[in-house]
Amino acid sequence: MEKTNAGNFFEDFRLGQVLTHAAPRTVTEGERAMNAALYPTRFAIPSSDAFARACGLPRAPLEELIGFHVAFGKTVPDISRNAVANLGYAECRFLRPVYPGDEIRATSEVIGLRQNSNGRSGVVWVRSTATDAAGAPVMSWVRWVMVRKRDLDAPAPEAVAPKLDAAVAAETLAIPGGLDFSGYDFGLAGEPWRWGDYAVGEKIDHVDASTIQETEHMLATRLWQNTSQVHFNVTTREDGKLLIYGGHVISLARALSFNGLANAQIIVAINAGTHAAPCYAGDTVFAWSEVLDKAETANPTVGALRLRLVAVKNRPASAFPLRGAEGKYAPEVLLDLDYWALIPR
Amino acid sequence: MEKTNAGNFFEDFRLGQVLTHAAPRTVTEGERAMNAALYPTRFAIPSSDAFARACGLPRAPLEELIGFHVAFGKTVPDISRNAVANLGYAECRFLRPVYPGDEIRATSEVIGLRQNSNGRSGVVWVRSTATDAAGAPVMSWVRWVMVRKRDLDAPAPEAVAPKLDAAVAAETLAIPGGLDFSGYDFGLAGEPWRWGDYAVGEKIDHVDASTIQETEHMLATRLWQNTSQVHFNVTTREDGKLLIYGGHVISLARALSFNGLANAQIIVAINAGTHAAPCYAGDTVFAWSEVLDKAETANPTVGALRLRLVAVKNRPASAFPLRGAEGKYAPEVLLDLDYWALIPR
Amino acid sequence: MEKTNAGNFFEDFRLGQVLTHAAPRTVTEGERAMNAALYPTRFAIPSSDAFARACGLPRAPLEELIGFHVAFGKTVPDISRNAVANLGYAECRFLRPVYPGDEIRATSEVIGLRQNSNGRSGVVWVRSTATDAAGAPVMSWVRWVMVRKRDLDAPAPEAVAPKLDAAVAAETLAIPGGLDFSGYDFGLAGEPWRWGDYAVGEKIDHVDASTIQETEHMLATRLWQNTSQVHFNVTTREDGKLLIYGGHVISLARALSFNGLANAQIIVAINAGTHAAPCYAGDTVFAWSEVLDKAETANPTVGALRLRLVAVKNRPASAFPLRGAEGKYAPEVLLDLDYWALIPR
Repeated sequence: MEKTNAGNFFEDFRLGQVLTHAAPRTVTEGERAMNAALYPTRFAIPSSDAFARACGLPRAPLEELIGFHVAFGKTVPDISRNAVANLGYAECRFLRPVYPGDEIRATSEVIGLRQNSNGRSGVVWVRSTATDAAGAPVMSWVRWVMVRKRDLDAPAPEAVAPKLDAAVAAETLAIPGGLDFSGYDFGLAGEPWRWGDYAVGEKIDHVDASTIQETEHMLATRLWQNTSQVHFNVTTREDGKLLIYGGHVISLARALSFNGLANAQIIVAINAGTHAAPCYAGDTVFAWSEVLDKAETANPTVGALRLRLVAVKNRPASAFPLRGAEGKYAPEVLLDLDYWALIPR
Repeated sequence: MEKTNAGNFFEDFRLGQVLTHAAPRTVTEGERAMNAALYPTRFAIPSSDAFARACGLPRAPLEELIGFHVAFGKTVPDISRNAVANLGYAECRFLRPVYPGDEIRATSEVIGLRQNSNGRSGVVWVRSTATDAAGAPVMSWVRWVMVRKRDLDAPAPEAVAPKLDAAVAAETLAIPGGLDFSGYDFGLAGEPWRWGDYAVGEKIDHVDASTIQETEHMLATRLWQNTSQVHFNVTTREDGKLLIYGGHVISLARALSFNGLANAQIIVAINAGTHAAPCYAGDTVFAWSEVLDKAETANPTVGALRLRLVAVKNRPASAFPLRGAEGKYAPEVLLDLDYWALIPR
Repeated sequence: MEKTNAGNFFEDFRLGQVLTHAAPRTVTEGERAMNAALYPTRFAIPSSDAFARACGLPRAPLEELIGFHVAFGKTVPDISRNAVANLGYAECRFLRPVYPGDEIRATSEVIGLRQNSNGRSGVVWVRSTATDAAGAPVMSWVRWVMVRKRDLDAPAPEAVAPKLDAAVAAETLAIPGGLDFSGYDFGLAGEPWRWGDYAVGEKIDHVDASTIQETEHMLATRLWQNTSQVHFNVTTREDGKLLIYGGHVISLARALSFNGLANAQIIVAINAGTHAAPCYAGDTVFAWSEVLDKAETANPTVGALRLRLVAVKNRPASAFPLRGAEGKYAPEVLLDLDYWALIPR
């Protein structure tokens, strides 16, 4: 009996299969403090119980990306341990705030499979759902990864590629119950800009940057219980370098975006995300954002901004780099993330 | 509309101006654990709820420097983002202990301005106050920084330099309500020395040292929400080195001072502080202390020691280095801090 | 009056002497989160309040090794500050789970002394006990260290070497009150293997590995309030390298062992432990386990496995390296730990 888990290979996945991921996790103030030490975040709602209460919430929720990374990490041993590449995200919805003491569990359903023409790997689409201990959903998302085959002779499954929304529809965004921005203190939050002050097409250079150190991303990636060896074990790659978990870049870029988007307080959806280039220790990460869309919500105090968040390495973001030759990403672009955030109207 | 905050320049400050700093913060057990991982601190009161209760406090307060750093960090984006140098501290008073769950907010009043003769920068004095969510003051301090001008043609303000106390008067130190050292357990605290055992002029070599790693100071400085780019972004300095936040050196030296000052449990004032030399990753920090003054307090169980805490880099502190040529600081001196601490009488 | 503590030397110890160690410590969710960031641990009981409750516990206990390291760290300034080598552990019993909010204090009794024939050092055996604030024991263990003499002319004490058990007897293991594995969720825990699935002599390669960074072990070792200078101060060793605290390797190897021993949830005893080789930053740590023994317990839902946990540096553990030439440890072996863990029957 082989006791250890070598992860699933492409031929192990079946359409409709549901995987229960290991290690339920209670998240606490400890995760909040670690997150604050790892990323230069300053958003007022997840920083202050009093500020959160003044916005109608029971206390300060944890940053949405803490919940996302913890839930995502749970899926890694079963979904992407043998992945060649993390290809994309879609339809990621944050269904309610996560508070200290809440529990996060995760399951995934296989919703698409397509063997590559080389016969050596295939693309697996999964819809993952995080729930609390009672089974109530907290967030859900789709991602697709390219996974190696163990047995090259295993037959190819029928190719099924799911139809995914290009973006989460604004009218379906989950506004946290009780949220009320009518008494929002812009001075304490750090910037005067509200929903009406942002225009579609507007670009913001977030100015600040941070040079990533080896230990930081490892602390973060372990905290999220993501076990992918390429982030931890220098013997897994020919160049002996540790690849930085893409989610670490997402959290860093989001934190940097405070300067210019301080009031885009709550992430409610991720529409799409691409890790355009690998990130290594020593890289200095800058960020810029573009307002892609705006929407009112059913809550008259709350507006939504659809934002493109771009992380750039080793050069300022003031030129808003995105595309390079032949429409590909410019080589300095690390991340292109498309998300919805809530902001006072 | 420029959305990002480039910080204030010298000509942006006005005498009497009050600045509300962003990002109120609830501090918790998470900050306590991070602080313990970042500094080799062992003071019994902030380490143990039971020990703190035996000293008349409701539970273990957070170390005073946690509160100070968090409050200080809030002032950085508005006060010192464009600072050339952090020139000094004075009149820093810790008005009550900070407990997990407490909130820290900060405001600053401009109390002095003096343009430099070169016309390119000026000195700004601010009195900063940290409060809880209800507005009750938790600590206050004065610092002065040299800030660049954006527009060299901006007119110089009338020069006003505030008169500052050389030290916080012992009789005004805020003794925490309920504090009672009558049953103090010296064995558990780690050393037998009480107020009467220390003599003015006595010097203590704290023996222990710690080699600073790049990631440590970055984790700390982010945890305090201090956004100064010189601590995070290697592209901001010509030598490509990250400058270590001076407060990191203060906390490290204070923790090292446990060995010899284990019972100097509670910092109640900082009289003055000078960062005499820059500190970089790889520096090994030693520390020594000198008893500058002693005072009784209104609480018959509590004495106060006025201490000079000196951090030294890359050589033992056994020779008590302080001054070098021409009365300047010796080159190995990083920090010269003058503070009051409470100790069993 | 010398105020600082230079630690005890061999001639300072007396048979039967009881030392009260400094700095009682309240452990919290902060320590849990830091531990999760430092080690790739995924055991479900200490990760999830709900999972722990489903196993009959009041909430998620902290991992046993957190309590052990915190208690062990307290003994360092008094016992091993002047140690040449940490020679071994025995009879380590975890008497009850440690929960957030619990307090840890430590005392040690000298139970053996033997001067070395060279007259320059001697072996000190201590039995250390950790208690809560009320004095109730939480864990106890024996360790022996080689300690330098300060005064080579000090007379040798009568040689007394305690008789120690080769292993903690299975029938004396402390099963946590209320523990009930009858409804254990193997799917959520991550593996299907129960007590009956493991055979004495079986070896498990834990596959995963982690490359240790300098900052990580320093954060950990400070978190445990272990003050040994060789872990922090590069000037203490001729090679200028920091020695990694052996306990850091224990926690890392234990976390790696999740892959194959996910249900060996609770450590209840450490029978013996040897740090076979020094570990430095940059080393990549792999791990393997061997089932040494199996025992039923008085609790019909709970079995015990006696496990050998071996940490290996810079090469995979798939060949199960242990002994090399002349019966000595193979050079790549860092740790050989013998412990009892509880697992669903």
